[in-house]
Amino acid sequence: MAKSVFNVRVYYEDTDFSGNVYHAAFVQFMERARTEYLRQLGIHHSELVRDGLFFVVRRLDVTYLAPAHIDDELVVVSHVKDLTGVRMVLEQSIFRVQDQITRGEVEVVLVGPDGKPKRLPTDIRLRMAGSGTHH
Amino acid sequence: MAKSVFNVRVYYEDTDFSGNVYHAAFVQFMERARTEYLRQLGIHHSELVRDGLFFVVRRLDVTYLAPAHIDDELVVVSHVKDLTGVRMVLEQSIFRVQDQITRGEVEVVLVGPDGKPKRLPTDIRLRMAGSGTHH
Amino acid sequence: MAKSVFNVRVYYEDTDFSGNVYHAAFVQFMERARTEYLRQLGIHHSELVRDGLFFVVRRLDVTYLAPAHIDDELVVVSHVKDLTGVRMVLEQSIFRVQDQITRGEVEVVLVGPDGKPKRLPTDIRLRMAGSGTHH
Amino acid sequence: MAKSVFNVRVYYEDTDFSGNVYHAAFVQFMERARTEYLRQLGIHHSELVRDGLFFVVRRLDVTYLAPAHIDDELVVVSHVKDLTGVRMVLEQSIFRVQDQITRGEVEVVLVGPDGKPKRLPTDIRLRMAGSGTHH
Repeated sequence: MAKSVFNVRVYYEDTDFSGNVYHAAFVQFMERARTEYLRQLGIHHSELVRDGLFFVVRRLDVTYLAPAHIDDELVVVSHVKDLTGVRMVLEQSIFRVQDQITRGEVEVVLVGPDGKPKRLPTDIRLRMAGSGTHH
Repeated sequence: MAKSVFNVRVYYEDTDFSGNVYHAAFVQFMERARTEYLRQLGIHHSELVRDGLFFVVRRLDVTYLAPAHIDDELVVVSHVKDLTGVRMVLEQSIFRVQDQITRGEVEVVLVGPDGKPKRLPTDIRLRMAGSGTHH
Repeated sequence: MAKSVFNVRVYYEDTDFSGNVYHAAFVQFMERARTEYLRQLGIHHSELVRDGLFFVVRRLDVTYLAPAHIDDELVVVSHVKDLTGVRMVLEQSIFRVQDQITRGEVEVVLVGPDGKPKRLPTDIRLRMAGSGTHH
Repeated sequence: MAKSVFNVRVYYEDTDFSGNVYHAAFVQFMERARTEYLRQLGIHHSELVRDGLFFVVRRLDVTYLAPAHIDDELVVVSHVKDLTGVRMVLEQSIFRVQDQITRGEVEVVLVGPDGKPKRLPTDIRLRMAGSGTHH
């Protein structure tokens, strides 16, 4: 149920010649927010990688509602919408003060050295279980 | 109906520490393919910008089916799935030889200096009309 | 003389398949640190752009001393090394705890709508003058 | 002595809100050109990685001479300026038709699984030896 909130500042690198933030930059902001969300739960990529484990994105669905601009301070609000043994679906929206900039959903799975999806380790599932809807 | 085909090589910048291509890099590959598709139709961002016009992404939906790696040569296949007065929806899939890497859909609109969607100019619509399903 | 300190977290997007941070990501970290440094001095890109003014990089010189990795928390230390009427040179080093990761120098000028370098406005120069060596 | 020539098209992702190409994008263009240059010599990152070997940038020095813009077709001209047992220095300039956009130099070394520089394998050195000045 708990929502994770992550602040992002818009820099030069995030904008394009239209004067707006480049659409793929929001996809990166969503990833940064997921990493920080996991970190809050004590889950670190740098530890998973030692066991050859990585989170990979299986599906990404983003609706762009309003533009963002250089120097804007954005907020990525993430929460776990669905959590099963092998995947988690996060709802992630980006806001600028009152304006909602994007609305999105990301499905993530953990893969092993063979590139195949792995069941989420129990301790990872337990840590996440308190954060959203789950099965 | 015509499909546009665009080749992309995977470079260092496109990969991440998992050894795979970073998921947002595919979103960039899709954008490059759209730009080349428009160029083939004689539509140039550098000309539109003189009238204060830009294409912006309204919705992005990507399913990741297989990983890609450094040095891979990928093919982005794009075709217009839906074209109305103010928006176009492109189906864009990425392949590596026989493997399909992503399947996606992007909805694009043209916005003016006020950030509001504009009707697609007739010549742009006509150029696109031959390339896909339209209304 | 004052040094500006800026924290950066390493995310997926910043790494490449070698397992290290991609070398151009450090160039982006340096830019973020410059923007925050300017913001501390009350100088905002979003305000300059209204007058058609942008900072552009004239020269970039980076020596890479050690690799950085996913989840690392880095510190970009910036200070103005040289400031004249039309350009500023910043020395920017990146550290991870005690390890120095890069050592660099960037020369920046302000350009106007014609793309030509402009003299730094007096208020910008005054704000910077307290922060480093200057002429 | 042989110069390698690599074409790059400027896309949305490469530009920033100033309307120009973002300065770190040129650093990425230089990397793509190095990869293609190595590929022409039969050297592939995807093969080196199987032995735990990667090229890493040791020093980067870029002077920005002119802006580039969306839709521009650029040419990266690279040649080996210096080649010793453990490092190679490439001179890499970027042009747009007659305008030189950047002038740069990159020093690259090969590192092994321990992150330490390795002597360039003889076959790699031999392949490169025909392409530039060497020791």
